[in-house]
Amino acid sequence: MVALDANGADAGPKAVAEGARRSGVRSLIFGPRSEIGSVDGEVVDAPVSIPGDQEPVRAVRRTPDASIVRATAAVAQGRADALVSAGATGPTLAAATLALKRIRGVHRPALAALLPLPSGPVLLLDAGASVEARPEHLVQFAYLGAAFMEIVHGVERPRVGLLSVGEEAGKGTPAVVEARARLEDGPLAFVGNIEGFDVPTGVVDVIVTDGFTGNVTLKVLEGTSRVVDRAVRDAVRSSLLSAAGGLLVRGALGRVRARLDPEGIGGAILLGLRRPVVVAHGSFGPEGIASAVRMARRAADERMVERTSEALAAGGALRSAPAGSFADDG
Amino acid sequence: MVALDANGADAGPKAVAEGARRSGVRSLIFGPRSEIGSVDGEVVDAPVSIPGDQEPVRAVRRTPDASIVRATAAVAQGRADALVSAGATGPTLAAATLALKRIRGVHRPALAALLPLPSGPVLLLDAGASVEARPEHLVQFAYLGAAFMEIVHGVERPRVGLLSVGEEAGKGTPAVVEARARLEDGPLAFVGNIEGFDVPTGVVDVIVTDGFTGNVTLKVLEGTSRVVDRAVRDAVRSSLLSAAGGLLVRGALGRVRARLDPEGIGGAILLGLRRPVVVAHGSFGPEGIASAVRMARRAADERMVERTSEALAAGGALRSAPAGSFADDG
Repeated sequence: MVALDANGADAGPKAVAEGARRSGVRSLIFGPRSEIGSVDGEVVDAPVSIPGDQEPVRAVRRTPDASIVRATAAVAQGRADALVSAGATGPTLAAATLALKRIRGVHRPALAALLPLPSGPVLLLDAGASVEARPEHLVQFAYLGAAFMEIVHGVERPRVGLLSVGEEAGKGTPAVVEARARLEDGPLAFVGNIEGFDVPTGVVDVIVTDGFTGNVTLKVLEGTSRVVDRAVRDAVRSSLLSAAGGLLVRGALGRVRARLDPEGIGGAILLGLRRPVVVAHGSFGPEGIASAVRMARRAADERMVERTSEALAAGGALRSAPAGSFADDG
Repeated sequence: MVALDANGADAGPKAVAEGARRSGVRSLIFGPRSEIGSVDGEVVDAPVSIPGDQEPVRAVRRTPDASIVRATAAVAQGRADALVSAGATGPTLAAATLALKRIRGVHRPALAALLPLPSGPVLLLDAGASVEARPEHLVQFAYLGAAFMEIVHGVERPRVGLLSVGEEAGKGTPAVVEARARLEDGPLAFVGNIEGFDVPTGVVDVIVTDGFTGNVTLKVLEGTSRVVDRAVRDAVRSSLLSAAGGLLVRGALGRVRARLDPEGIGGAILLGLRRPVVVAHGSFGPEGIASAVRMARRAADERMVERTSEALAAGGALRSAPAGSFADDG
């Protein structure tokens, strides 16, 4: 069973429920029952949602009957194996981080975004779960991302790159320089530093960075795609002659847009917790939601959490706390 | 007189000299005399250049007869009012930072890149002169960038945005949160935080960030433009019908490419030193070099350094050292 928060999607709870139906996966849906109809699974009437303008952690604590809080609780209690949220990223991260435990020895969860690139999907993490990262965080992000791409996306020995300002070992912040040295000594297929130019080319399968740089990178990529695409279309419309040409190329341009569309991929995933948490894009319609639900199901079926934990242990990348210590830095 | 290092451009010293001639500005050119010919100004035979693969600061110290080192020295000695380098960014930054003093009270120079956007040029700084930034550095970058856009590009009251992961005041690293609070209290036309989406849309004239994020942002923007542009062209070629359309839209697409071309703008500029330093893009031909030379000339003529210093003082953004202290943190 996959728990699904149906509130918060731009297209409304009805479209989310339709996505759950199309996924073919048994679902436990939290949302306004009157808008959801029947599904393969169960519907829990949960009409309350968290408004987007509130500070997420406080809002989650204050609103125990919100659909995202109830859906997360259902996963924590074992009523569902994974969570899919169609709502805002902030409350989803807050609810999941508060209710679901971290994998033992993992410092903090990372939000991993699947970039819809012409060369195929590339995973970027952290895309904004935190704003700063120490070397040991970056190292763990590399393991979390590689395990996801291998286990859920079927990429054999995913190539991992560390985002920096130059390819040489000494380039970047002190945290990046140290993380690189540790990753070079480890068992991952680590290619070293990559630069911003390399983000959209598919030269690696996993891009590791801190949550500030990752969030900016993700949004610059999306914004630039949009601006260049619009500039090309405006240019085509700008003359009668090229407008005639534009009619002829319209089909081809439509196919490019479809390939760069995140909806085909399944959104972002929160890694490092003991249950898979998929954060669908707010703009997703039924097809995007169905992909997200199937991705959550696959992560649970393939034992992503257990196998990620094993990979971290094999690479010596788990947090080493003094014996008897319960200290947590998350 | 503008000093010009003619070594290091992809197109060779001859193309750089041709750019100097086209600029209409008197130039003091350092490079291999045999390839340069006659110019309006003076040619100094300086055939030695710094190879791109060496650590810049060490290479500059070891190679006193390199053309970039000699050109920078000419500016430091007052033989020229500004510097234009057609060579690699690293050695230019190193030579300029070592030979030219910082504006009094400026913590460190920033590399400011002019983004060639459809809406017009936008200045992004720091694009990689440093890798980390404290709040007082970010605040100074805002003044340096606003002064440049106003004085050299004629933008009245340039709108300044601080790059972060959300618009709200609390979003971002501690350094960003503190810089925002200080900028809100100052006299600049500060719009608050902007996000990665906003970088390519022209919503501000000046984008302030640390050198790590700025360098990544600049390269993601360039890489994504290239990938989307290529995807569109490939799609157009992919069918006979759309290939016919492609021939008809070719002129329009060529105009988009010209507008996104950095050569029309003049490259990057190193701000915060006591003389203007323009870093032309390595790929520039004569037209790009001519723009860069004219930009350097304009910065000197318009007293950019003095007026920047005044703006920093008026905003209370100069470094306040204890009386009698010679401490420098640069």
